[in-house]
Amino acid sequence: MTEDEVRTDEHVEEDYGPDDRRVSAIRAAIEATDAGLLTELMEPLHPADIADVIEQISPGERRALLELWSGQIDGEILSEIDEGIREEVIGYLPANVLADAVRELDSDDVVDILEDLEEPQQGIILDALEAADRVAVERSMSYPEYSAGRLMQREVVVAPEHWTAAEAVAFLRAEDWLPDQFYHVILVDPRMHPVGYVALGKLLAAKGATPLQDIAEDSFRTINVMDEEADVAYVFNQYHMISTPVVDESGRLVGVITIDDAMAVLDEEHEEDILRLAGVGEGSLSDRVFETTKQRLPWLAVNLATAILASMVISIFEGTIQQIVALAVLMPIVASMGGNAGTQTLTVAVRAIATRDLTASNLWRVVRREAVVGLINGLAFAVIMGAVGWVWFGQAMIGAVIGVAMVINLVVAGLSGILVPVLMDKAGVDPALASGTFVTTMTDVVGFFAFLGLAGIVLL
Amino acid sequence: MTEDEVRTDEHVEEDYGPDDRRVSAIRAAIEATDAGLLTELMEPLHPADIADVIEQISPGERRALLELWSGQIDGEILSEIDEGIREEVIGYLPANVLADAVRELDSDDVVDILEDLEEPQQGIILDALEAADRVAVERSMSYPEYSAGRLMQREVVVAPEHWTAAEAVAFLRAEDWLPDQFYHVILVDPRMHPVGYVALGKLLAAKGATPLQDIAEDSFRTINVMDEEADVAYVFNQYHMISTPVVDESGRLVGVITIDDAMAVLDEEHEEDILRLAGVGEGSLSDRVFETTKQRLPWLAVNLATAILASMVISIFEGTIQQIVALAVLMPIVASMGGNAGTQTLTVAVRAIATRDLTASNLWRVVRREAVVGLINGLAFAVIMGAVGWVWFGQAMIGAVIGVAMVINLVVAGLSGILVPVLMDKAGVDPALASGTFVTTMTDVVGFFAFLGLAGIVLL
Repeated sequence: MTEDEVRTDEHVEEDYGPDDRRVSAIRAAIEATDAGLLTELMEPLHPADIADVIEQISPGERRALLELWSGQIDGEILSEIDEGIREEVIGYLPANVLADAVRELDSDDVVDILEDLEEPQQGIILDALEAADRVAVERSMSYPEYSAGRLMQREVVVAPEHWTAAEAVAFLRAEDWLPDQFYHVILVDPRMHPVGYVALGKLLAAKGATPLQDIAEDSFRTINVMDEEADVAYVFNQYHMISTPVVDESGRLVGVITIDDAMAVLDEEHEEDILRLAGVGEGSLSDRVFETTKQRLPWLAVNLATAILASMVISIFEGTIQQIVALAVLMPIVASMGGNAGTQTLTVAVRAIATRDLTASNLWRVVRREAVVGLINGLAFAVIMGAVGWVWFGQAMIGAVIGVAMVINLVVAGLSGILVPVLMDKAGVDPALASGTFVTTMTDVVGFFAFLGLAGIVLL
Repeated sequence: MTEDEVRTDEHVEEDYGPDDRRVSAIRAAIEATDAGLLTELMEPLHPADIADVIEQISPGERRALLELWSGQIDGEILSEIDEGIREEVIGYLPANVLADAVRELDSDDVVDILEDLEEPQQGIILDALEAADRVAVERSMSYPEYSAGRLMQREVVVAPEHWTAAEAVAFLRAEDWLPDQFYHVILVDPRMHPVGYVALGKLLAAKGATPLQDIAEDSFRTINVMDEEADVAYVFNQYHMISTPVVDESGRLVGVITIDDAMAVLDEEHEEDILRLAGVGEGSLSDRVFETTKQRLPWLAVNLATAILASMVISIFEGTIQQIVALAVLMPIVASMGGNAGTQTLTVAVRAIATRDLTASNLWRVVRREAVVGLINGLAFAVIMGAVGWVWFGQAMIGAVIGVAMVINLVVAGLSGILVPVLMDKAGVDPALASGTFVTTMTDVVGFFAFLGLAGIVLL
């Protein structure tokens, strides 16, 4: 069996999720306002897939779909829908459908929906909840955004630390409020401080008389309710956890976070890093023209400012360029190579900071490595580009100048690629957000300055 | 409580993982060749954190650490260590330590280690395994790399579909080979085809006489052993699954994949996308100078070729530049804005393809949106840059030329930013890998051509 035989995307799309043919059929049913056919096509889909369909069709189709089919929107579909259009979707739903939908959700899912809504819609949803649920949701909302407190579910399964397996099993069998998904029984002391947890598999396999403490997991960690959700995701990923208790400042158990929520946060964090590195703050395909323009314009404006700065460096050397036009032809090469080398280093650095692989212990070794890599690559491309410049313009000195400028700029690219994100991080700014602009400004300015400045000295 | 009060990274680093102070102490203990102190410092750490320490120290310290402490390297630490230095670490381990370490691992973890090793080291590890384990590992290795078959664990907990809860519990209690982590009992028919699964929580809560089929999960999916691991990660994330059965081509149960493995794949896929978008194929902080240079050089070489292409466009207009040097000053601005706008669109497109949000249903709507966004941003920056050009060089026509070139280039950036990755994907090439070069070449060439070409027509 060879690697070529791995099943490709297309096979999986056949098996899972809405394929293009089904979406086309759904769109046709919407156009024909055929509610029966629509239900038949939507029915077999998982709520996550229904949410994808709602995201992928056009705003006009979406409105028509929701008018035809709104009665069947349930809480899980609402949870799955992209934040960008959730407000729009909720706007189309009759009050009773919305109320039913949110009432069936766990408190953490309601919180997740509420967070992204504006005031009037938040009120409608809170009013739809029963009093007890509303209190739970409001308590969660009192924790800061992006905290473990917002992420956790309040439904926890606990047992006194001195219980046996048989006692725990009897207790579980007697309860009828158990959460849909739980993976551990948390052992607590009399003050509700968690002291360990037992995996359900271990509990099932244990003899009845076994004390729970004897089958508790070896490693046990708690999350503080005020921890950042990004740190929660890191801890789950680093220690391969499946669920973990959340405690308040006094160490009392207040909730539990499960791996599916941590996985979703990890996914969002990555997405954010990728988009920020590319100068897109946030952004999804379901955003409209106005939102998309608004998201991208500020980053382009920053880039314009730095591009003008680089141009001002060039303008210092207008006289030199006038005498040797070849310089105007070659100068973007030095800047471009520096920008690319800087982005390479920067990206590795931003990821290493995010995964906590770049620390005080190895910073200077990494800085040294980047400088040496910049030097080696700089020398390699100096030779190549020196030869190209010489042959192209028939002047050995032009080749020499671009070669030296290349070495200088690639070393600067390596150093700024690592130091800028580290300094950003120390200053408390997300390095993914702002480092790119700084690094490419640096390599543009240094690239133009080194190349044109050297040319002015050597060639005139 | 405000958002400012979310606990920052530093607090978490105090609670979890090796902090810089501990790493410093470990390095001091290595230098003093104090094996006792070293053990005292390493002992309390989680294997994942020990692996991080081994990654962060210098190669010299690593060798010294492993000479002092190699006896205590266990299988879990080996599993956690970055692939880049795993071979080096294994090279330092005495044969008996290595044998003990791999013997204690589950078959999927041994496979994970084997995959990244060269032939002679692979043989040493296979020889260290007991015969039965070796057969299991070799069978897994017979599946293609990056397939579900490599990812799954072979230890599965199954029950005949007609059993009751009491029968299943009695069976679990009688077995002593149960996997460390399992979350479901898989129901199978007599031919070992999975027909559903029961969450352990449901099993624990059920009355003894309840048929397993009554408490099986509503939604049930299987993964094909030949599915790509990236698709497995997508399915886990899309449908919030915790574990799922893996079947062979004839539908027989052959293993199970759990969410922690899917989460690790998701993490790697993201990492790969980010690094590929930045022109770094792979790369980690523990790579040495030579490897780092080797990884980055090819991408810079591609960039050099495209930069030379852009320079050739400029050289067409050497005569024009000689007459109006202001053009040389302003031309990088048009190219830079196009490159940035193209990268923005491209990144959103690459992510949307990866998350399957960009499909035939919405492609043309998204293309239209990108063109319109490019047009609006182009017009906005045309006005700004037109004014800047006019004021800077005192010529209205220079402002007009750069304005028009800006509009053209930002529309091209939007269109190529979406169409290039879509075409790459259709052609079976990873859009993260190659799109960036194509898009920036396009915006450089179009930017220089439009600006200098227009200038030649209008200004001379």
